[in-house]
Amino acid sequence: MEFAEELGFLKEQVLFGEKIYAGKRFRNVAVAGMGGSGIVGKIFSEIYTEKPVTLIDGYNMPAHLSNDTLFIAVSYSGNTEETIKAAKRAVQKGCRVVTISSGGALEEYGDQKIRIPRSDLQPRSAIGYMLMPFMNGFGLVDSAGIREAHRVIGSLDRNNQECFTHAKRISRNKKIPVVYGAYPLSSVAYRWKTQFNENAKVLSYCSSFPELNHNDTMALAETYRKDEFYIMVFDSDRKEIKERIAITSRLTQTKFNFIEVEGKSLAARLFYMIHYGDYLSYHLGKMRGVNPTDVSLIEELKKAL
Amino acid sequence: MEFAEELGFLKEQVLFGEKIYAGKRFRNVAVAGMGGSGIVGKIFSEIYTEKPVTLIDGYNMPAHLSNDTLFIAVSYSGNTEETIKAAKRAVQKGCRVVTISSGGALEEYGDQKIRIPRSDLQPRSAIGYMLMPFMNGFGLVDSAGIREAHRVIGSLDRNNQECFTHAKRISRNKKIPVVYGAYPLSSVAYRWKTQFNENAKVLSYCSSFPELNHNDTMALAETYRKDEFYIMVFDSDRKEIKERIAITSRLTQTKFNFIEVEGKSLAARLFYMIHYGDYLSYHLGKMRGVNPTDVSLIEELKKAL
Repeated sequence: MEFAEELGFLKEQVLFGEKIYAGKRFRNVAVAGMGGSGIVGKIFSEIYTEKPVTLIDGYNMPAHLSNDTLFIAVSYSGNTEETIKAAKRAVQKGCRVVTISSGGALEEYGDQKIRIPRSDLQPRSAIGYMLMPFMNGFGLVDSAGIREAHRVIGSLDRNNQECFTHAKRISRNKKIPVVYGAYPLSSVAYRWKTQFNENAKVLSYCSSFPELNHNDTMALAETYRKDEFYIMVFDSDRKEIKERIAITSRLTQTKFNFIEVEGKSLAARLFYMIHYGDYLSYHLGKMRGVNPTDVSLIEELKKAL
Repeated sequence: MEFAEELGFLKEQVLFGEKIYAGKRFRNVAVAGMGGSGIVGKIFSEIYTEKPVTLIDGYNMPAHLSNDTLFIAVSYSGNTEETIKAAKRAVQKGCRVVTISSGGALEEYGDQKIRIPRSDLQPRSAIGYMLMPFMNGFGLVDSAGIREAHRVIGSLDRNNQECFTHAKRISRNKKIPVVYGAYPLSSVAYRWKTQFNENAKVLSYCSSFPELNHNDTMALAETYRKDEFYIMVFDSDRKEIKERIAITSRLTQTKFNFIEVEGKSLAARLFYMIHYGDYLSYHLGKMRGVNPTDVSLIEELKKAL
């Protein structure tokens, strides 16, 4: 199956109605997940702030996990080593455990098991299936938001010429993509970085306003090799961020490639930008002559461990 | 004053005895801070896991702040716009507020005000003064650890030839420094990135094992421009991470430049690696003919806002 076709299914994924049962009985949330599955925890922790959220993306487990913790383990395959270890530990600590997977050994640990209806995708192409249970369960989206998300994703499926153009400019001069986001889309900038890595097989980096103003600014003004980076900046609807972007560009004499965000609702803006980065990195991979779906080395590494 | 001389003072900073009063009455911790001050929150949130920790490094405030929250605001100058706004809001939300600064408007909001004894440093050169109140207050260091940290920092002050050598290799071929860390030093990898930005004025990036195995791996194998990056990897004392590093290097045919971590205690290892990155970036700045202490553009940007 063509990756472009797989990408198209994201539109259907926002209709996935499963929800995490997020009652009032917990005091904090922990989300475990790696790579293309872990990204949904990073997005969730940026947009949900009603309770403290702890992310687990490695071997180290927070000491504070307890029966006050709603623990959510996300692994598309359900067989990710790090995530299974974390879920096992969470059960021992008395957490309420929710699993999100297409099956796999992970489900064994879930008090609530959310089953993704397709197991034939790349984890990174199933982001909607993994993110919607958070959005639905924690009240981060309503039906109007879902409709708008569905619509803007569809419009990008019909026309992604702009993504193609950015990819062309990157590919032509073999540039390294750099992505600057800002709240509430900082984690989406990280998603783009990982998609450039996996789909296009190029090194790529991300950062966020205003934090980057405290470090990257000096480098943008005086670094060597600046022309070898292609800096994309998510346009912001927040006045203070818009100002920072404009001043940073002017003071450091850096050309920013702006990416306009479509949609009014958080869900639409979020999914539009996710999908935009998917297409951009997909086109770049194709232009480079690599196979966007191939992640054989990551599989090989898992086996070697 | 020479920056190398300023760096030397880090040895004295680990003796700074102030401590955050971290009683039992709070259920979660929030730390606000940006750039060279905010880094201490990032380090703290990686090594302290007894309670959930929320980081604030922008304009957005978590909704969950309450009188259950111990709120710590860190700004070396005490005049950072984002951090003052956050502290003000924390007071309104009923948090217990601790300020760490060398003075400034921030102190007005502190129930406990920790005053750094020197106000003539660059924020990033005062990291010990800002980090020790966390280490002392949350029981993350004992007197043996402080002695060991003091000793390993001193040994690096006497001989930082190795840092010089790495800087030379980076500078000679105008390479972009990339830093790979792992728990409990992932945040120190970020510190290195920011020090390369501010001291040496070069673009620089960081990532961490095992998360990077889920994305960077494919890029390391097939990216263009790989030879233009200088990839440094913190050696780990954890078997599973050591294995991952070795396999990643082999499968992707990538040369990693290993950085040995000195010391047995967490405090020694942490401060040794912080100091190592300080010297490395300082030497690189000098070799490039830039002034390591100059951050005029960041100041100009703050004024322009």
